[in-house]
Amino acid sequence: VVRGIGDDAAVLRLAAPVLVTTDVLVEGVHFKRDWGTPRQLGRKAFVTAASDIAAMGGRSVFALIDLRAPASTAVVDLDGIYRGFRDTATRAGTRLVGGNTCRAAALSIGVTLLGEAPNGWVGRDGCRPGDDLFVSGTLGLAGLGLRLLRRRRGARGPAVRRFLEPPSRLVLAQGLARLGGLGGMIDVSDGCLRDLGHLCAASRVGAVVDAGRLPLAATYRRLCGDDLALALTAGEDYELLFSARPGLRRRLIALARARRCPLTRIGRIVARPEGVRVLGAGGRELRFAAAGHDHFRR
Amino acid sequence: VVRGIGDDAAVLRLAAPVLVTTDVLVEGVHFKRDWGTPRQLGRKAFVTAASDIAAMGGRSVFALIDLRAPASTAVVDLDGIYRGFRDTATRAGTRLVGGNTCRAAALSIGVTLLGEAPNGWVGRDGCRPGDDLFVSGTLGLAGLGLRLLRRRRGARGPAVRRFLEPPSRLVLAQGLARLGGLGGMIDVSDGCLRDLGHLCAASRVGAVVDAGRLPLAATYRRLCGDDLALALTAGEDYELLFSARPGLRRRLIALARARRCPLTRIGRIVARPEGVRVLGAGGRELRFAAAGHDHFRR
Repeated sequence: VVRGIGDDAAVLRLAAPVLVTTDVLVEGVHFKRDWGTPRQLGRKAFVTAASDIAAMGGRSVFALIDLRAPASTAVVDLDGIYRGFRDTATRAGTRLVGGNTCRAAALSIGVTLLGEAPNGWVGRDGCRPGDDLFVSGTLGLAGLGLRLLRRRRGARGPAVRRFLEPPSRLVLAQGLARLGGLGGMIDVSDGCLRDLGHLCAASRVGAVVDAGRLPLAATYRRLCGDDLALALTAGEDYELLFSARPGLRRRLIALARARRCPLTRIGRIVARPEGVRVLGAGGRELRFAAAGHDHFRR
Repeated sequence: VVRGIGDDAAVLRLAAPVLVTTDVLVEGVHFKRDWGTPRQLGRKAFVTAASDIAAMGGRSVFALIDLRAPASTAVVDLDGIYRGFRDTATRAGTRLVGGNTCRAAALSIGVTLLGEAPNGWVGRDGCRPGDDLFVSGTLGLAGLGLRLLRRRRGARGPAVRRFLEPPSRLVLAQGLARLGGLGGMIDVSDGCLRDLGHLCAASRVGAVVDAGRLPLAATYRRLCGDDLALALTAGEDYELLFSARPGLRRRLIALARARRCPLTRIGRIVARPEGVRVLGAGGRELRFAAAGHDHFRR
C-alpha cells in the first residue's frame, strides 16, 4: 500500500497481471438478518468475493468494502460485520484499503477484491476432452442449510453453519495453480450443474458426471438420502470445480492431503456434442432441473 | 485486458502504482428516479467515481459496475443506466471489465474504478503554507440544482443540469499532475469548506479563502445573489480543489485555457494555527455552518 484509506483513492503496488472481482450480499436477497450473526455476515462477504479470485488460482491482496445500512442499524452490528470481514481478510493476507458507508433501505455488503496470480491464472476455458473433472470439499450442504433456514427461523446444525460460514478455498486454489497441468476452473456458487455448464461453454466441451462419486457430507446423506438435487443444483457451495490432465491425479491427492481439503474426481470432460450429463447406476442418465441461482429469471 | 467479463475475475494489465476507488449512488439517498433520465444516472455514476481518480491526478482505466434494482424495474431503464455509464466511461478511456446485477429494494449503482498515474499521483497531504489555493469550474451550482429539484418535481435549467450531469475533470487533473509543483488536491464532493477542511487536516495546514474570488456561475448569482452558503457548503460540485506553489500561476492559466475549464485562485494556504477561514469585504471573517454531506450524522 502506497496510500491507503484517507485519500481520494487508494494507491497500490500489485504484481501484474491484476485480478479484480466484485460481489455483493443483499438483505432479503442473499440473507436475512436473523439467520446468523453480523460477524458471520462480514466473514461470508469476504469469502464469497474471494471465491472468484480462488477460481482463477489467484490470491487476494487488497479489499474495498461498500457497506450500506438502514439508519436504524445498531452500530454494534455494523462493527460486527466490519470485524468479521476484516479478520477473515487479514487471515487471507488481504488488506482493506478503502470503501464507502452509506444509508440504504436494506443492509448490504459489497466487496471488491484485487488480487495477484503469482503461479499463473486459470481461466474457465482450459478444459480439454479427456481431462478429469474434480471438485473440492462437498456439495449441497450449504443449499440444504439455506432450505432449513427458510423453513424454520433459528435453525441450527452443520448444514446451516456451512451456509453461514462457507470455507475459503484461496490457499487450495494457489496450490492448484502451482501444480500446472490444470484445465479450466470455476467456483460453485450457482449450483454444480449450472457452473459446470458455464465451464463447459467457455471451454467448448461437454462433461459426464458420475452421480455415485459426488462428495456428500454425512449430514447431507442423513437428511437427503439418495436425493442429489441439492448437491447438483443448489448454490452457495463456494467449492472449486476444475478439470485436470489425468497425469495429475497423484499430485492432486497429495495436495488434498496437504491442504486438508478433499478433492474428488466426479467425472470427466468429453467432446462438446455429448453435452453435460449426469450418469447414475448402470450408466443411466439422470435429469435435474438446473435450478441454480438467477436474480432476473423473468 | 488479459481476460474480461465472462470469467470468475477480470485479469488486467495496469502500470504501477494502481489507483482504486469505489463509489455508489443510491435511490432515495443520492437521487430520485424522476429527477432525470436513466442515462444521466449512469453518466453521473461514472463521473462521481472518476472524480476520486481525478483528485489523485490519475486516469481511470478499468471499471466494475454493481447495478441493483427492484424486480419491477423496466429493462429499458436498466439499459439506459448501463449505456450512460459505458458511453461516458469509454469517452474517458475506461473499459468496463466486470460487475454484478441483482435485485434489491432500491435502485443503486456502485462503481469501482482502477486507474493509473503516469504523471505521478497527488495526495491530500501536500499543501504547504504559502501555496495558492485553486478550484476548477464553479461552486454551488449543483447544490442549487439539488435544492430546486427538492422543491419542485420536474425542475429544469442550468443548475438542475449541473446537478444531474456533473463534468468529468479527469483530463484536467492529468494536466495538473503533469505540471509538477502541485501541493495537495481533493475533489469537492461534500462541500467546498468541508473538503478544504479535509485537505488542510491531511496537510496539517490552515487556509484563507477570499469570498470575493469564489467562482460562481451566472445562474447561481441570479438566484442566490450574494449568498455564498451553497457555494461554500453544498456538495456534489465534483470540482478539483488544490494548492500550488505560487510560481505555477502562469502555467495554470495556460492549462485552464487549453482545457477550457476555469481555474480560480480563491485563497492561500497558511499555517495550521490560523485554521480554515473565509474572509469577506474588508477582511471581515464570514462564518458558515459547514453543512456538507454526511450520511450518518447522528
